[in-house]
Amino acid sequence: MSGLAAVLARLDERTEASLSELIEFASIPSVSAQPAHQPDMERAARWLSERLRRAGLGTVELWPTAGHAAVYAESLDAGENAPTLLVYGHYDVQPPDPLEKWQTPPFTPTVKGERPPEQKLYGRGVSDDKGPLLLTVQVVDAYLSALGRLPLNLKFLFEGEEEVGSAHLNELVEKNAQRLKADFVLSADGGMWSAETPSLTVSARGLAALELTVRGPTKDLHSGRHGGSVHNPLHALATLIAGLHDESGRVTVPGFYDGVSELTPQQRQDIANLPFDDAAYLTQTGAPAVYGESGYSTLERQWHRPTLEVNGLWGGYTGEGSKTVLPSEAHAKLTCRLVPGQEPGRIAELLKTYLEANLPPGVTLELHPSEHGARAYHLPDDHPGAAVARKVLAGLYGKPPLDVGMGGSIPVLETFQSVLGLDTVFFSFAVGDEDIHAPNEFFRVPRLYEGQHAWAQFWWILGENNA
Amino acid sequence: MSGLAAVLARLDERTEASLSELIEFASIPSVSAQPAHQPDMERAARWLSERLRRAGLGTVELWPTAGHAAVYAESLDAGENAPTLLVYGHYDVQPPDPLEKWQTPPFTPTVKGERPPEQKLYGRGVSDDKGPLLLTVQVVDAYLSALGRLPLNLKFLFEGEEEVGSAHLNELVEKNAQRLKADFVLSADGGMWSAETPSLTVSARGLAALELTVRGPTKDLHSGRHGGSVHNPLHALATLIAGLHDESGRVTVPGFYDGVSELTPQQRQDIANLPFDDAAYLTQTGAPAVYGESGYSTLERQWHRPTLEVNGLWGGYTGEGSKTVLPSEAHAKLTCRLVPGQEPGRIAELLKTYLEANLPPGVTLELHPSEHGARAYHLPDDHPGAAVARKVLAGLYGKPPLDVGMGGSIPVLETFQSVLGLDTVFFSFAVGDEDIHAPNEFFRVPRLYEGQHAWAQFWWILGENNA
Repeated sequence: MSGLAAVLARLDERTEASLSELIEFASIPSVSAQPAHQPDMERAARWLSERLRRAGLGTVELWPTAGHAAVYAESLDAGENAPTLLVYGHYDVQPPDPLEKWQTPPFTPTVKGERPPEQKLYGRGVSDDKGPLLLTVQVVDAYLSALGRLPLNLKFLFEGEEEVGSAHLNELVEKNAQRLKADFVLSADGGMWSAETPSLTVSARGLAALELTVRGPTKDLHSGRHGGSVHNPLHALATLIAGLHDESGRVTVPGFYDGVSELTPQQRQDIANLPFDDAAYLTQTGAPAVYGESGYSTLERQWHRPTLEVNGLWGGYTGEGSKTVLPSEAHAKLTCRLVPGQEPGRIAELLKTYLEANLPPGVTLELHPSEHGARAYHLPDDHPGAAVARKVLAGLYGKPPLDVGMGGSIPVLETFQSVLGLDTVFFSFAVGDEDIHAPNEFFRVPRLYEGQHAWAQFWWILGENNA
Repeated sequence: MSGLAAVLARLDERTEASLSELIEFASIPSVSAQPAHQPDMERAARWLSERLRRAGLGTVELWPTAGHAAVYAESLDAGENAPTLLVYGHYDVQPPDPLEKWQTPPFTPTVKGERPPEQKLYGRGVSDDKGPLLLTVQVVDAYLSALGRLPLNLKFLFEGEEEVGSAHLNELVEKNAQRLKADFVLSADGGMWSAETPSLTVSARGLAALELTVRGPTKDLHSGRHGGSVHNPLHALATLIAGLHDESGRVTVPGFYDGVSELTPQQRQDIANLPFDDAAYLTQTGAPAVYGESGYSTLERQWHRPTLEVNGLWGGYTGEGSKTVLPSEAHAKLTCRLVPGQEPGRIAELLKTYLEANLPPGVTLELHPSEHGARAYHLPDDHPGAAVARKVLAGLYGKPPLDVGMGGSIPVLETFQSVLGLDTVFFSFAVGDEDIHAPNEFFRVPRLYEGQHAWAQFWWILGENNA
């Protein structure tokens, strides 16, 4: 039996244990956005450190930040001539709200489906990113227990702030730049484009975020007595938000599209050739129609066009029954997804300028731009990591992977690029339809095992080529 | 000592007890809008019934409805030749949200201020309507204990659904129309226009209410992955809401102003003569500027122009931190204040038609018009109750009361008018600046005692004139 075969056999012996471990890990409510979950964040970091140690990694460290700590581990036993990979993932998860829409409790991971091929594990964070992250540690374990060695040098950086914009990671990576040196980053975060077709993500949109508060009277007023005589912050906010897009779905903020390249005919052709169908997409999302910037197809909009989305909007009485109030405040949370050519800081500034200039009379505005944005990212076409990924995926699924874009953002890509000069290859076995950031998030159980095989092969091939 | 003097003296002996009783009554969280407070609603109704019995009223009944019960009491001992008044009030209160803005707990009524003239009682419902309601019962008590008789026949109808649109009162009044016969209604609900100047409310705006839900995808989506390719219900809702008013502050719904009379030159002159000052109004409300339908002054807008207000708006992630979600739903609660010439049902229909016709693409709309609206009301200029009220107020405050309008609505006015054919005289000693429906609602403690004197005199004068 070759070394790789032994590793794969070891993984196959341990499928039940692998799944049990994921259930244990995902039952820790490590919600980075909510201060009440601080102890759970610490618990998740300890759990992960312990698992890394148990896999056989001698160096496992907790790297504190002003926010949540990152977990770092390394094995450099393959020597100076072997390649070195920096494996990235995150152990924090999105808030589970709205809770009432979960069919099983978000932090009681639950397997549904009779037979393994159809089994899904439901729970917050199972797909984003605890399943894809944990399997990389399980592969280390299999290598060290089956072969007593790893085919290359590995560094693991698992952060706890991905879901809150990786606020302190830049600082942390700068501080530890020497220790984090590697040939490239292999990311356990990201996602496969569909369950049927293997894909390699070669681009990701960037992010700029802003929270705004519109204020009117200093206290809530009776809407009967005062309605019509002072401006209602909810009306003013609705006017501001409504004005952010024109009727063709384009963002109206002056300068927003500056520097954004039009899609090339080749890009449009490649996208048109993909097996994507609006009707199936609507079935998947349940939306009554596709909608967006006119002149672009759905995938063109998702991968290559910038957006401005309201993620939350609130004010006044939102409880049961009625309360005739003219509220003193109204709030909105906005995020923009960026494409190459857009700077997050500049976009936030443009947005700020626009909102201030277009504020309706009779109210005041308070803006809180998020400190950390992310630039869009593109993996070079001839990247060596991409070649290995394509080879592994083609072998595993029997067909070559598609090159796809990613609508979402991973702010840390920007950090790896600008601080360490490293490219990132996405190699996640989550699938894009697994309801991440939504109720009833799930992870396809077979993907856990496929992901293990794929990572084991990736490391083997990369290590062998350099042996 | 005359009979009236004895009653007033008795009230003056009992000021501390009167205030203690109000504190006890207002500590019951009788929030009609929230099902969790059902037991508190029942407790408040029992407390009030018991207080009416203790005042000496032989007939005290609980009148159940499909919602919250009304409390009814009567004394007809003055005989057939004496006038009969129907006293109206409500024992339910608004929800206390937002709780965090209260400086003292909403259901722990708290007196602030050293000396009685400046004392205020803080708590939900103290001004709207438990203080003004309770003082009428205390006046009965004073009459019966001081004189052993009342100068006229009295019927009390205290409902438990005023803050939820008096949903079942129409039915109840119809069913008990015979027993509720009276010369006119004297309302303990309503409000004095300012603390310095006595006023008589001669008009009230009506009400129409509607709740709407905009739906997009059937589940919350990741705004990075899906943003820009399906419509965001928050954007669609903001567009709908923003479109409800034009730039001059007028409601855009076709037909909304049909049947609404322009103010007469006399009305405008009367209002211009009132001691009202926009700057003082802004200081009181804390709003940065007055705002509303152009071409009208603030008081003209509040009393004589219809409005459309958003009372609540919500959707997506509204918690701490960020969650990059494209939500499946967005919600809004709307109310319109109506003036004479506007039918609540028709206004709700016009609104429905407008919202359906202007729904942005890519989303669906669900509308829940409230079943019960209220028409606007106007007290006839030569009403005998108005004459008594003017006389009592002039005597109490040393200057004749101003005729004022009321921006708010009391749906039951419509019921008394249409079912019983009765006019309503507002005789409340709450003041318009007491933050009803808002955090830190308060009632001026001296108004409790002034109100008692005023009601005692009103009954005496009306009874004497007919003796």
